[in-house]
Amino acid sequence: MKIAVLGTGFAGRTLAGALSALGHDVVVGTRDPGETLARSAPDAMGTPPFSEWHAANQHIAVETFAEAAAAAELIVNATNGAGALSALSAARSANLSGKVVVDVSNPLDFSQGMPPVLNPVNTDSNAERIQHAFPEARVVKTLNTMNAGLMVDPGRLGGGDHSVFVSGDDAGAKNTVTALLRELGHRDIIDLGDITTARGAEMMLPLWLRLWSALGTADFNFKIVR
Amino acid sequence: MKIAVLGTGFAGRTLAGALSALGHDVVVGTRDPGETLARSAPDAMGTPPFSEWHAANQHIAVETFAEAAAAAELIVNATNGAGALSALSAARSANLSGKVVVDVSNPLDFSQGMPPVLNPVNTDSNAERIQHAFPEARVVKTLNTMNAGLMVDPGRLGGGDHSVFVSGDDAGAKNTVTALLRELGHRDIIDLGDITTARGAEMMLPLWLRLWSALGTADFNFKIVR
Repeated sequence: MKIAVLGTGFAGRTLAGALSALGHDVVVGTRDPGETLARSAPDAMGTPPFSEWHAANQHIAVETFAEAAAAAELIVNATNGAGALSALSAARSANLSGKVVVDVSNPLDFSQGMPPVLNPVNTDSNAERIQHAFPEARVVKTLNTMNAGLMVDPGRLGGGDHSVFVSGDDAGAKNTVTALLRELGHRDIIDLGDITTARGAEMMLPLWLRLWSALGTADFNFKIVR
Repeated sequence: MKIAVLGTGFAGRTLAGALSALGHDVVVGTRDPGETLARSAPDAMGTPPFSEWHAANQHIAVETFAEAAAAAELIVNATNGAGALSALSAARSANLSGKVVVDVSNPLDFSQGMPPVLNPVNTDSNAERIQHAFPEARVVKTLNTMNAGLMVDPGRLGGGDHSVFVSGDDAGAKNTVTALLRELGHRDIIDLGDITTARGAEMMLPLWLRLWSALGTADFNFKIVR
C-alpha cells in the first residue's frame, strides 16, 4: 500500500520504518523537507536530527505534506497533536479526500507546565476535529495509547498480550487499519465505535504520563482483561 | 478496622458487604436513614431498593453521614461523583479530620446526555476537590476504574491478573488503603503519586464507558502490562 507518514519526530520515523519494512511503499511528509533535512541538532525531546535517521533510511522519500499525501492511499498523522490540523491543512483537503487518515496523535498542551493537559478534551477530541475539518477523509484513531516502539512491535512486551483501540465513522477504513495493525503484530484490536470514542482513547494520556513516572519506564501498555 | 461506607447505591452496598465479610466493623452512611430504608422502588439505575439489601445485611448499621463518619477510622466515599462534596460536608469536616478518606467516585455529568462527560476534568479531579475541601482528611483515590463486583472480588476475572491505582498525598494513608486492597484480593496495586494523579484515574472513565458498549459487558478491567 502507498502510505504517507506525516511527521518526522520519533513516532513518524518509527512508523515509517516499520511500515516500509513490511513492504509498503512509504514516504515521509514534512512542512519543508529541505529545512527538516538541514537540522543538525537533537529536538526538544532529545530525538537525534532527522537527517541521521534518513541517512539510514534513504529508500524512504521525504516530501512536502501535500506531495506525500497526494500520492498516498493511506495517510498517517504522526505530527504532534497541537500541529495536526495545520499539517493536514498543508497536505490539502483534496489530497485527503476519500482516503484513510490514521490519527495517532495526542492533543498534549504544555502551555500550563508539566505534566501537560489535553486540549481538546472531554467533549471533543483531536480525531473529531480532524474528521470535522476534512469531512471527505476517512479518519481512524488508533495507536495513541502506547509508545512508538510498541506501536510497531507489540510482541516485544508481554508476548504482545495487550490491547489497541480503533475509533472511526467508516467501517471500511477501520477494516483497513485493523489489517495494518495485525501486520504490525497487534492481536487484541478493540473497535470502540464511532469517531467520538476517540475522546476516551485520548483521555488515557494523563494516566499514561503518570504511569511513565510511577513505573520509571514508557515501555508498558494497557490490556483490557475480560 | 471501623469503616464507614458513605453511599447506598450498588458500589456502596458491594463495598460494605465485602469489607464486613472480611471482618471489619462496617456501617453505611446515608443522608436520611429513615428515607433510604423507606424506599420501595428500584433506583434510576435499576438497583433494587436499599431495604432489600439491608434485610439481608442487618449486621451492617445504617446511620447518617455524620454518625457513620464520627465513629469510623476509615471512610469510603461511594456516593455518586456529583454528590460527593455534599455528602462529605454532611459527614462534617471534624469527623473526617486525620482519617483516611477513600474516594471511589467518578465525576460523571449526565446533564449533556449520554454518554456522560466528566466534571471536573483535565486540570482538576473529584479527589482533589475533596482533598481541598477537607484539608485535614487523608484522601486516597482508588478503585474507580472498575465495576463494583471487581472492586471486591478481582479474582473472579482473569485470575485477578489486572491492575488498580492509588493516588494521594499521604503515604501512610496509601499504605492503609493498599493493605485493604490486598485483603480484597488485589495484587497489582500501582501507586501513581500525589492526589493530582487522580485526574488520570478519573479520565479512564470515558474509555471505560465506551468499552462497556463495545464489549457488551462491564466485567472487564485494565491491566498495565510491563
